[in-house]
Amino acid sequence: MEVKARAPGKIILAGEHAVVHGSTAVAASVNLYTTASVRLPCSSDKDDIVKLQLKDLALEFAWPVSRIKEALGGFVGPISTPTSCPAECLKAIASLVEYQNIPEAKIKLASGVSAFLWLYSSILRFVPVDVAITSELPLGSGLGSSAAFCVAISAALLALSGSVNVDQEQCGWMVCKEDELVLLNKWAFEGEKIIHGKPSGIDNTVSTYGSMIKFRSGSLDLIKSNMPLEMLVTNTKVGRNTKALVAGVSERAIRHPDAMSSVFNAVDSISKELSILLQSSAHDDMSLTQKEEQLAELMEMNQGLLQCMGISHGSIETVLQTTSKYGLVSKLTGAGAGGCVLTLLPNLLSGTIVDEVIAELESCGFECFIAGIGGKGAEISFHDLV
Amino acid sequence: MEVKARAPGKIILAGEHAVVHGSTAVAASVNLYTTASVRLPCSSDKDDIVKLQLKDLALEFAWPVSRIKEALGGFVGPISTPTSCPAECLKAIASLVEYQNIPEAKIKLASGVSAFLWLYSSILRFVPVDVAITSELPLGSGLGSSAAFCVAISAALLALSGSVNVDQEQCGWMVCKEDELVLLNKWAFEGEKIIHGKPSGIDNTVSTYGSMIKFRSGSLDLIKSNMPLEMLVTNTKVGRNTKALVAGVSERAIRHPDAMSSVFNAVDSISKELSILLQSSAHDDMSLTQKEEQLAELMEMNQGLLQCMGISHGSIETVLQTTSKYGLVSKLTGAGAGGCVLTLLPNLLSGTIVDEVIAELESCGFECFIAGIGGKGAEISFHDLV
Repeated sequence: MEVKARAPGKIILAGEHAVVHGSTAVAASVNLYTTASVRLPCSSDKDDIVKLQLKDLALEFAWPVSRIKEALGGFVGPISTPTSCPAECLKAIASLVEYQNIPEAKIKLASGVSAFLWLYSSILRFVPVDVAITSELPLGSGLGSSAAFCVAISAALLALSGSVNVDQEQCGWMVCKEDELVLLNKWAFEGEKIIHGKPSGIDNTVSTYGSMIKFRSGSLDLIKSNMPLEMLVTNTKVGRNTKALVAGVSERAIRHPDAMSSVFNAVDSISKELSILLQSSAHDDMSLTQKEEQLAELMEMNQGLLQCMGISHGSIETVLQTTSKYGLVSKLTGAGAGGCVLTLLPNLLSGTIVDEVIAELESCGFECFIAGIGGKGAEISFHDLV
Repeated sequence: MEVKARAPGKIILAGEHAVVHGSTAVAASVNLYTTASVRLPCSSDKDDIVKLQLKDLALEFAWPVSRIKEALGGFVGPISTPTSCPAECLKAIASLVEYQNIPEAKIKLASGVSAFLWLYSSILRFVPVDVAITSELPLGSGLGSSAAFCVAISAALLALSGSVNVDQEQCGWMVCKEDELVLLNKWAFEGEKIIHGKPSGIDNTVSTYGSMIKFRSGSLDLIKSNMPLEMLVTNTKVGRNTKALVAGVSERAIRHPDAMSSVFNAVDSISKELSILLQSSAHDDMSLTQKEEQLAELMEMNQGLLQCMGISHGSIETVLQTTSKYGLVSKLTGAGAGGCVLTLLPNLLSGTIVDEVIAELESCGFECFIAGIGGKGAEISFHDLV
């Protein structure tokens, strides 16, 4: 039998950077998925092996179960109480990862492999297993690929372990129950901590629950969007250092305290307006087109404020200018200075135009995805292997 | 004898649009001049004619003095008390202007010709005269060309009439006394009213006094810059409707009152910081290079906030992106949506780079000027005609 779990990526609709300074921000799921397929090896497989395949990267890792158990067995706690990986255990994991000789060019993946080992040990407790990961999410571009990885793996492992109960007879993708989602989200967060140190918890929460999240000063509120929303997500492929960008905004805030505090207030107002707009149903006074116009205006305003914070970039400006030629509004999403850019695709926009915009953006070397925003979170499906 | 007067254009360094909503703004003179040359016709000229030549436009207008006197003689007051042109007089002026058959393509000049007729009648009181205007300022692009026109004409006419006394024996450009500048500024403002209806008075004040002006809610403060400042002024040549742009920002402020009021507060802080920065002398803790970096940051922030107000434009973005490739910071100046863009040229920037930037901008169809900022205001010189 095989268990598959898929988990979506996330975008920041409004409030990135300003959220560090106390403003409200809004994140939403994006229907680009990371999928984890987990199966127990066939009886013919004699060796007790844990295998992890990262299919998009053509990488495969394998450990004898006995070796993992020896290294990590003393650290794992109960499945029902997700716990952080202790520092000592991280050392043990590091030696398991080293043993795999990850190519130098892909060494950033080591932390993901470490997260996998902790989640596997804690949830599946040393059962031989084959795990295969595929993803539609570009890595390290602010779309929450690492959270989707942790959520997908945790969901598949929890389902296989029986800690999450979905109807195995039913076909297709199924959603977990509320309390199971809480457990899933907590485990995914533990994985994220191994990858990022001090993650905000936003990415894994969006990936687990889907829809949208309003967050401010560490408190997260799930919000239900009432607006079908499609965005063009353009990956500029320009890498950046998120910590340095966050520090840059903070330094600017120290140099210009009055101006920047007003800027952060403006962003806070925009995020609040945006979350009210998305929650209102299309029948509340406004047509979908009017709501789209409002949303576009809020995105344009937020983008101007992000430029004011100094985190735009030539590549982002190129996307903005290209899409604006077609009358479309864009804003950067996430850390900025490269990364991804969102372009609102109004409901009535012709497919021909979308194709033209994508062709022009891709001719600049960018990568484009058309994505539904605010859809489902983590889902699970069961497959008999005949 | 010939009297020449020249008057500089202006740029808005910070605060355009937000000033309409109560924020502080900073304007400065730019050393691009409009020059008015006024001479009494030689004795051999038999007819009593008033001639106005707009040399850059290859236009020439002429009226018999008797005709002007007949039409406007009943309306003019004392030179020492600048007065507004009454509505009835405007009608009489209109018929004098109509008589000139201004080509349809240049009909916008009619208001400037009207302003000339009022200033001439009020100040020179029906003496036959030849007036020739030349200008380095592009028209209608937000650099205050109409104010420079009114200041230059008023200054030359006041000098010829003896109401402004500068040393006729001295060579070169001379500055008027303080009380004469007050009179000059008032007359130029009366001309501006004929051209613009309800001008703010900022453009003529900057053109008269030079240097910089901080203004807010109708009150103007002259400030003295202590920082040598050079900007590249790029005229995108994209025309726009200033009234519609101002209305657009106001509508956005009505739709998003909280966000926009924070945006206007941010602009206010930036303008105040900028005026303090420019007034501080280079020895106050900061080197010129540090001051330039601070100024560039304030310009970048202001530009982001202007984008947030929705008044940027593809042509402006092209200038921003082109100059940023060279590490230079730009912001739009004035109404936006086209018009002119400022690019800070740091003191230590090599001329080769400047040449490259200009070549690249001009290849986009833009027109570039290198301009000193915050220099002299109106100046007068006398020339013997041998």
